[in-house]
Amino acid sequence: MLLRVRSAVSHLVAGLGPGPGTQPPAEPRHGGGGGGGSGAGGEEGPRVAAFCRPAFLQLTPEELRRADDHTGRAVQSPRDGRRRLPWSTGYAEVINAGKSQHNEDQACCEVVFVERRPSPRGRLPCRDGSGEPNRGRKGFYFHYWALFDGHAGSGAAVMASKRLHLHICEQLRDLVDILQDPSPPPICLQHDSELSQAEDNGDVPSDALPRFHLEKAVSHESLVIGAIENAFKHMDEQIEQERASQHISGGCCALAVVYLMGKFYVANAGDSRAIIIRNGEIIPMSREFTPETERQRLQFLAFLRPELLGKEFTHLEFPRRIQPKELGKKMLYRDQSMNGWAYKKIEEDDLKFPLIYGEGKKARVMATIGVTRGLGDHDLKVFSSNIHIKPFLSCFPEVRVYDLTQYEHCPDDVLVLGTDGLWDVTNDKEVASVVMEVLTSYEPNDPCRYTMVAQELVLRSRGILKERGWRLPNDKLGSGDDISVFVIPLGGPGNYM
Amino acid sequence: MLLRVRSAVSHLVAGLGPGPGTQPPAEPRHGGGGGGGSGAGGEEGPRVAAFCRPAFLQLTPEELRRADDHTGRAVQSPRDGRRRLPWSTGYAEVINAGKSQHNEDQACCEVVFVERRPSPRGRLPCRDGSGEPNRGRKGFYFHYWALFDGHAGSGAAVMASKRLHLHICEQLRDLVDILQDPSPPPICLQHDSELSQAEDNGDVPSDALPRFHLEKAVSHESLVIGAIENAFKHMDEQIEQERASQHISGGCCALAVVYLMGKFYVANAGDSRAIIIRNGEIIPMSREFTPETERQRLQFLAFLRPELLGKEFTHLEFPRRIQPKELGKKMLYRDQSMNGWAYKKIEEDDLKFPLIYGEGKKARVMATIGVTRGLGDHDLKVFSSNIHIKPFLSCFPEVRVYDLTQYEHCPDDVLVLGTDGLWDVTNDKEVASVVMEVLTSYEPNDPCRYTMVAQELVLRSRGILKERGWRLPNDKLGSGDDISVFVIPLGGPGNYM
Repeated sequence: MLLRVRSAVSHLVAGLGPGPGTQPPAEPRHGGGGGGGSGAGGEEGPRVAAFCRPAFLQLTPEELRRADDHTGRAVQSPRDGRRRLPWSTGYAEVINAGKSQHNEDQACCEVVFVERRPSPRGRLPCRDGSGEPNRGRKGFYFHYWALFDGHAGSGAAVMASKRLHLHICEQLRDLVDILQDPSPPPICLQHDSELSQAEDNGDVPSDALPRFHLEKAVSHESLVIGAIENAFKHMDEQIEQERASQHISGGCCALAVVYLMGKFYVANAGDSRAIIIRNGEIIPMSREFTPETERQRLQFLAFLRPELLGKEFTHLEFPRRIQPKELGKKMLYRDQSMNGWAYKKIEEDDLKFPLIYGEGKKARVMATIGVTRGLGDHDLKVFSSNIHIKPFLSCFPEVRVYDLTQYEHCPDDVLVLGTDGLWDVTNDKEVASVVMEVLTSYEPNDPCRYTMVAQELVLRSRGILKERGWRLPNDKLGSGDDISVFVIPLGGPGNYM
Repeated sequence: MLLRVRSAVSHLVAGLGPGPGTQPPAEPRHGGGGGGGSGAGGEEGPRVAAFCRPAFLQLTPEELRRADDHTGRAVQSPRDGRRRLPWSTGYAEVINAGKSQHNEDQACCEVVFVERRPSPRGRLPCRDGSGEPNRGRKGFYFHYWALFDGHAGSGAAVMASKRLHLHICEQLRDLVDILQDPSPPPICLQHDSELSQAEDNGDVPSDALPRFHLEKAVSHESLVIGAIENAFKHMDEQIEQERASQHISGGCCALAVVYLMGKFYVANAGDSRAIIIRNGEIIPMSREFTPETERQRLQFLAFLRPELLGKEFTHLEFPRRIQPKELGKKMLYRDQSMNGWAYKKIEEDDLKFPLIYGEGKKARVMATIGVTRGLGDHDLKVFSSNIHIKPFLSCFPEVRVYDLTQYEHCPDDVLVLGTDGLWDVTNDKEVASVVMEVLTSYEPNDPCRYTMVAQELVLRSRGILKERGWRLPNDKLGSGDDISVFVIPLGGPGNYM
């Protein structure tokens, strides 16, 4: 059956979305406009998921054709003389060596204005009980960088790159006043369209009343985390709803960074990675979600809902496939509760294919997919079966927070985001050493230096085309995958706007 | 309903097991005897779970009465002139200030011989295909220390203190040859009672045949971890089976340390804690399993199996109880996928009691229990309901490994184990400073020094009885809980046997 599902994956990888759009669609840079409708809605029409490259690259049709060429694998970056990315962020990307027709990575870099949602009947919400509208504070900006690594088609990655920041904006709109108020967030809001009558009548808000014995303190930070988590969920739901009309097959990993009020929120769902390099020290800002790292969550789900395995799979893990003739022998296994291994007598049921199988980059869920979090994949099934993979995939990111105000950053301190095309062949230390090497060869105030770092990281992971394929200087295989990299200076908007 | 379930807890805490046995039963110090039966079985008769203190304390009936006195709260340690614990391990304990009739903590310290299980028809198993029995290697020893913190009765803790090491021994018996062989453990064993015929006929073992393309390497260490994990499971099953005949109510947290072939395996299920103090540095060797730390696992289970909540509870978490009059307002919540918080409109279903409620030591699962891993609790229900708590509790420990051979240890380096009675009032740093303070006042080769540390740790957490209860030097409340502490020198058996 392994072969069977492998063919399924090849089939899916080869099945591509609609052809390239020669002009990237216009990017809405402001979310939550005055109309109060969903800023993340599909109002742009049916072409939003059509193949393109990031708008900020401003590629001409000729440049787009060059970027899409698997033999040259030209590295793409924002050009001098065109619009510079916020904070002088560096970016570079390269297409894969032929595993899919198009580059299935996508990127987005935006400054988004979050406008406070108008309260019912035009009144601004107030939460201090004073009845005074909060005049003059209508919203705030957040900075945003994101990488999307598509699989089995580019549609999900393209759509997420155009929409996820709008979903985040949408989630933050209700929090505009709360996040700007230094007092702890209210546990229960007085305001709601159904309740505006009571509020207008001057009722005392319940937050001014004596509190319950037990009440958990909730931080502003955790509200932003919750907003980002729910934005990922809504993004996934939007892909589900529009996948037919937008011709979206497949899914994508998503790594998104929100800079808001002095803090980075690094949200990761998939196998991309973010690290901070500060004074030469490496600070991991994400972890990868794969069949191996999420084994116990997946096994737990399969154990509780065996019907999801469709009588084809077992929730137990074995170090290799079992042969029918080994029935009755003792073999190593582990279940959803175990981290170690033990021997068990092989029974009929153990001959089914394991839910989790393979190691490292070859590990798969139901022999089909090698990442366990991300957006899309709503139609993904085990080959020639009716077994859906999606219940095992999670669209929820892990969000890590880095407080920029807690440390004095120098111009060489950066946050590096990369898709797995980078990290498959280049480890954290090597990335840190390239960062330092390149940055020291440019003046600290040269705004191009972060782009140079991103290009060098992509080049060193891609390698050089030789007779035996793309090779690194040490003659090992370079990455044949799409590679995308952001290099974000930590000096912040004050230094690098 | 909160009050209702609180009364349930008080009721359970007051409901005690059988009265104290004046003599602790004899301890079997060797597991896996020649008979080949279960070394962890209930062959000792119906008194195995009767109340007692650890056998190694060798308390006289008069001493036992003193140890059980809540007003004096005398600290108990192994006495000079009686049997010394292996490695000159230090131990001390004290009873609670009155919250339960007996000290519900238990402790065990043993050196256990693991005898290789005889193969079918007297042949020793061989795994190298040579057909040569492994003469002269019949087993190995492991060192063992464990703390059990009982709740709602002492029976589970007493039984686990007498049996868990035997279950570990039982699990290790099949691994005697494998663990002593430096080559990687076999994925599939040839030997099995049903298969001995084939083996005797000289069949080539399958491990000598060409291997599959994909085969995961499994380490010796992970086999020991698996053995300990399964031992906890079997211990829990034994408590379930014998709880009626042994009059066991309630359950216990379990923290067990196995020293085997140069490594500590620290297995924790509950809210006890282990730390290593090495050259003044603190190395955490466990984490606590509470409703807060395991929130997402519990919510995930409740989300997938809502029938376990019996229509009384919601799997969502809220920062406080919701009042019926707040229906329709927006309140902070988080579900099984979220780490942050967001607002949702309160619906009828949200008025149910939250699965997880309260903060810190007051956090509870279904308003009933404050720990989420451990042994026992098979009859625990939400008060005046038929809702079982057990499906939410896990008997599986997290096992952390510390390789003693990777570092040159000095006589002041120790592993400290403590029940929550210690850690509720004394943090890691304070424990480390007491350890250093006491050890420096004794000669490095004085075998009593680790007992002195354990006593001092217990004394400082208990405090002194004043008019307003047990007080620490800073006048804060001392721990009113049972307190038990092991202090294990890391010099190892070579230095301290």
